[in-house]
Amino acid sequence: MAKTNPGRFFEDYSVGQVLPHAVPRTVTDGERALYHALYPARHALYSSDEFARSCGLQESPLDDLAAFHVVFGKTVPDVSLNAVANLGYAEGRWLKPVYPGDTLRSVSEVIGVKQNSNGKTGVVWVRTRGLNQLDEVVIDYVRWVMVRKSNPDAPAPETVVPDLKKALEPEDLVIPEGLDFSNYDFTLAGEPHRWGGYEIGEKIDHVDGVTVEEAEHMLATRLWQNTAKVHFDLTFRPEGRLIYGGHVISMARALSFNGLANVQMIVGLNGGAHANPCFAGDTIKAWSEVLDKAETSVPGVGAIRLRLVATKGGAPFELRNEDGKYQPQVLLDLDYWALIPM
Amino acid sequence: MAKTNPGRFFEDYSVGQVLPHAVPRTVTDGERALYHALYPARHALYSSDEFARSCGLQESPLDDLAAFHVVFGKTVPDVSLNAVANLGYAEGRWLKPVYPGDTLRSVSEVIGVKQNSNGKTGVVWVRTRGLNQLDEVVIDYVRWVMVRKSNPDAPAPETVVPDLKKALEPEDLVIPEGLDFSNYDFTLAGEPHRWGGYEIGEKIDHVDGVTVEEAEHMLATRLWQNTAKVHFDLTFRPEGRLIYGGHVISMARALSFNGLANVQMIVGLNGGAHANPCFAGDTIKAWSEVLDKAETSVPGVGAIRLRLVATKGGAPFELRNEDGKYQPQVLLDLDYWALIPM
Amino acid sequence: MAKTNPGRFFEDYSVGQVLPHAVPRTVTDGERALYHALYPARHALYSSDEFARSCGLQESPLDDLAAFHVVFGKTVPDVSLNAVANLGYAEGRWLKPVYPGDTLRSVSEVIGVKQNSNGKTGVVWVRTRGLNQLDEVVIDYVRWVMVRKSNPDAPAPETVVPDLKKALEPEDLVIPEGLDFSNYDFTLAGEPHRWGGYEIGEKIDHVDGVTVEEAEHMLATRLWQNTAKVHFDLTFRPEGRLIYGGHVISMARALSFNGLANVQMIVGLNGGAHANPCFAGDTIKAWSEVLDKAETSVPGVGAIRLRLVATKGGAPFELRNEDGKYQPQVLLDLDYWALIPM
Repeated sequence: MAKTNPGRFFEDYSVGQVLPHAVPRTVTDGERALYHALYPARHALYSSDEFARSCGLQESPLDDLAAFHVVFGKTVPDVSLNAVANLGYAEGRWLKPVYPGDTLRSVSEVIGVKQNSNGKTGVVWVRTRGLNQLDEVVIDYVRWVMVRKSNPDAPAPETVVPDLKKALEPEDLVIPEGLDFSNYDFTLAGEPHRWGGYEIGEKIDHVDGVTVEEAEHMLATRLWQNTAKVHFDLTFRPEGRLIYGGHVISMARALSFNGLANVQMIVGLNGGAHANPCFAGDTIKAWSEVLDKAETSVPGVGAIRLRLVATKGGAPFELRNEDGKYQPQVLLDLDYWALIPM
Repeated sequence: MAKTNPGRFFEDYSVGQVLPHAVPRTVTDGERALYHALYPARHALYSSDEFARSCGLQESPLDDLAAFHVVFGKTVPDVSLNAVANLGYAEGRWLKPVYPGDTLRSVSEVIGVKQNSNGKTGVVWVRTRGLNQLDEVVIDYVRWVMVRKSNPDAPAPETVVPDLKKALEPEDLVIPEGLDFSNYDFTLAGEPHRWGGYEIGEKIDHVDGVTVEEAEHMLATRLWQNTAKVHFDLTFRPEGRLIYGGHVISMARALSFNGLANVQMIVGLNGGAHANPCFAGDTIKAWSEVLDKAETSVPGVGAIRLRLVATKGGAPFELRNEDGKYQPQVLLDLDYWALIPM
Repeated sequence: MAKTNPGRFFEDYSVGQVLPHAVPRTVTDGERALYHALYPARHALYSSDEFARSCGLQESPLDDLAAFHVVFGKTVPDVSLNAVANLGYAEGRWLKPVYPGDTLRSVSEVIGVKQNSNGKTGVVWVRTRGLNQLDEVVIDYVRWVMVRKSNPDAPAPETVVPDLKKALEPEDLVIPEGLDFSNYDFTLAGEPHRWGGYEIGEKIDHVDGVTVEEAEHMLATRLWQNTAKVHFDLTFRPEGRLIYGGHVISMARALSFNGLANVQMIVGLNGGAHANPCFAGDTIKAWSEVLDKAETSVPGVGAIRLRLVATKGGAPFELRNEDGKYQPQVLLDLDYWALIPM
């Protein structure tokens, strides 16, 4: 028997299956520094322990997206090693900040399966939970992927398609314990714009761009222990190593500082599409659209729902063509909720 | 109103203006490790906590230049976003070591303005202070930049050119509290040469070279949260991303270990010029010249004033051509004071 | 007298000489995070403090190979600056885990010299010890290098060839104090295979590959403060910067997780050959062969002796051609002992 992991195929999944993922990871100041070297991250709450404390937290947490990538990375060997496509995300919530010294592990549950009409592939939905060393759930999200069948003759399972929210309700969002923006320093944060300064429908071009390099996306992807071949092995994919979608997410989010400097903490992931592949040499830029706004249970802490679009060229604010398809220069269309001082 | 930062133009500066810069940063062991991965840094005082303690410090500080880059990086959005050129540095002093866990922020004061005769640009002088979480000034320096005017018709301000020292006096230098070289281990430090072993006028070719890569200079520049477009966006600058001058400074200083292994702590920056641009693929080498020597108030701790020149090819020790212009291969001409065991 | 280090030549070595190497290094969580970004390292004991504690250790140690590279890097200025070739390793033992916060230094003793018949070079054997801040030996190994003579007329020294073990005996291996696999969690570790599941002679193709980049190997090599010119300076070696052999070792070891996830701690280095040079753009893959197995003094802790082969193309399991020479695609042939749950 081969000792290496062949990955799971479509017929290996069934609804209700629990997949405890391997390789727990302790995150430290080292991961924090690397995050700041890999992305132009400048949100003050993650950059300064003093600033985080002035907002009621014990110290700067690990960037929300770094925590997400670590949790996500652990699922790859069990969920997406034989995936043809990463189809979507839903109902993602950040439930507790992750601090240096915390140890994360991930567990997924299969919540949906649907064989495709071609009989060769199927869609698998999993709900993944990231847990810390106290077994507290820190992150919880659904993703679905298209997976190959190993045996095309394997019978189709009963179709189960989970009922997922198009977007989280503001009430679904969890505000980190103690978070308090009443002493928030807008000068140190970098911009004067509060919750009240943003209007639904408003679009912001984040202006800056980064031309991405092979060494960088591989450093990042390994840091999250995401070992999918396509990101690392040029012989496996001579047209170019595919850059991990999470690298694009983090790059775009960091670029969005310029215009959204006070959108400090991501707390909800409503959905996301990796619209086109990203390769080394592409220059990533980003724009955002305000989709919604809400008050929260904590006075002074507002919620803002944003579309974050990453592109590799073209003008900002162009998302889809007349057929409703993503423009070829669109890399990412992400829909998230975040917290901002009111 | 656009929410992104357009940067300041020449007419936006006036003498006496105070610019508190955004995004405080907590530095940790992560930044320290990255500094050692990005540069061939080997000065023992920054490499070993034990060695630092044997020199009277609590532990290894963050490299002096890393601290400088962090402080400098914060000033970019307010000082040099629309700068045409970084013209010079003066009166730079390291007043307190920065240790892992410290949080740095920066504040600048405009101390000079002078419109250029073309009416389109002007020179702005700022004195920048880097402060830690106790509001102690850890670094203090002057730099001046040429900045574009947004409105060419804006009236020229009254010219104020600050009176800056050509070089700090030895008495201006601050010796870190507790620094004591009486137990200094020259074997562990890597070379036998003391203060007395260097002569004014002596030149040292540091021999080693590093061919620089895009991924590295971008990792470094982001680590200092310096977000100037020219370093990151190839579409913005198709002739090649300009490498941040601080990357060249740190590379040259690290290379200077070979011949200056005991020149441990930088305490004064007398001046510096980024003589020519540096691009990925260039091979950085370095040479030094001893400009001056002085005793300090602390027995056993000597001061040495050095010219550090970084080049990208050519023979060492060639600085300027007969017209007094920098040779085309010269990247950097830096003039600093540092501490060395007597 | 030049102040830079010219390195030692063959005639500068004599048996019994002790070489205390410079630049002690404190390792931290930063080095740990960088190791996980540079290599696809996933062995749970080094990834999770919780997992390490469940195995009886105080926390995750620095990866065994990272500790080796730090100790090795310090020897370069004194041992291999003028080396023509790194010929071999023997009798390497990891005697104590290295934890974040430990400070390492290295000392070598010359244990053999043999001038080559060409009169221009010679072989030097050194036994190197890595010590921590308590002066405990944490790593101990022998390596031998071919070194140029500076003066071809220097007389040949008396030949001394040390008597080295072809492989360490299981009794030579030191099991870290407290190591206990009785609560070992195979699910978290990533694979079900125990000591008993591997057979002598078994070969494993580790499947995954990584196309290596200039920026990555230079970051790694600098991190270990290995400053050999050939790794950094393209003008010195226009055919391409030679990738430090330790980078290949770490890459191959990390890739071997896929099939050897429970081979947690390396405790012995029997030998190793850098069979062919590695350059940026090469895609490193790895395969292993089980050479031996042994019980240890600690119940539940098994020892396994493995051949780890790194390649840059070609089929797995092809090591030598009919003449007994390494196949051109073989980069590394390493022979080591490691610990695995029984």
